[in-house]
Amino acid sequence: MIYVFTGNGKGKTTAALGQAIRAVGEGKRVLMIQFIKGPWKSGEDESAKLLAPNFKLLKTGKGFVGIMGDTLPREEHVKAAEEGLALAKKEIESGAWDIVILDEINNAVDLGLILKEKVLALLQATHYKLPTIILTGRNAPQDFIDIADLVTEMRDIKHPYEKGIKGKRGLEY
Amino acid sequence: MIYVFTGNGKGKTTAALGQAIRAVGEGKRVLMIQFIKGPWKSGEDESAKLLAPNFKLLKTGKGFVGIMGDTLPREEHVKAAEEGLALAKKEIESGAWDIVILDEINNAVDLGLILKEKVLALLQATHYKLPTIILTGRNAPQDFIDIADLVTEMRDIKHPYEKGIKGKRGLEY
Repeated sequence: MIYVFTGNGKGKTTAALGQAIRAVGEGKRVLMIQFIKGPWKSGEDESAKLLAPNFKLLKTGKGFVGIMGDTLPREEHVKAAEEGLALAKKEIESGAWDIVILDEINNAVDLGLILKEKVLALLQATHYKLPTIILTGRNAPQDFIDIADLVTEMRDIKHPYEKGIKGKRGLEY
Repeated sequence: MIYVFTGNGKGKTTAALGQAIRAVGEGKRVLMIQFIKGPWKSGEDESAKLLAPNFKLLKTGKGFVGIMGDTLPREEHVKAAEEGLALAKKEIESGAWDIVILDEINNAVDLGLILKEKVLALLQATHYKLPTIILTGRNAPQDFIDIADLVTEMRDIKHPYEKGIKGKRGLEY
């Protein structure tokens, strides 16, 4: 099974995490590889420890690309993303996992850090049993959607940031 | 903060669960009350134990309403939903939780098991500090969307069930 969680709304990574938690509860082994996200700490790091050893979280990204004060040369991001994909391939082929989450890989492809063909090749491999793979991130390429069994678009209907903007407008106009 | 996860796609409850996991990782206390869902076991039951004591899962529903072989008198479902809401009120007012997830409460309202006015009254209470509240379930009433700070619609783009149907059609026509 291949799942895609995409769209501009909140809930893509958390839905994958929630899926992971359920599976761990059923005795399954889940690996989450975070592309894009940098090495800083987040809530899921500590939770990952609580759910170990059946849940493992690996971070391969170098943080935001081209925004939020990112000053890293683009090649560094590309290198990190490619290393992430190589790691994903190795872990998927190992047969050690029931679910592998490739977190924000859609963005990594959309940003041009990874060729989508490389991801597709991984998803279409036939010489070993694929675990369930969950691809998250906005702007999922159409090829991922075509190949997936389940696709949910997380659509942003309302967001605190927008609310703030609207509030300001309300004051200003 | 009030979050609403709604829509017909997969990922609403799991996004709330993922949010819970992150928060527990940050030392926060999270309560999930499941409306609708029956007392049968699911993956999150075991995971809840792994994340205890900062994560607690309570089930108040009597299972599916009017589908999947449900033969329970409607009043039983209404009673269970009302008890669930009373429990939610008590727990929210207790101040013991940083996040309270009211899982599938949108459906409970949509199915007419709970009056939306009762939920709104709970969300608009001002005589105690509200935790972050996450309302999940399809067909969220517009009033919930209006009052929420963040709303994501999980839109079903592709689902294994549909895929099967399509496959069949492909064979038959």
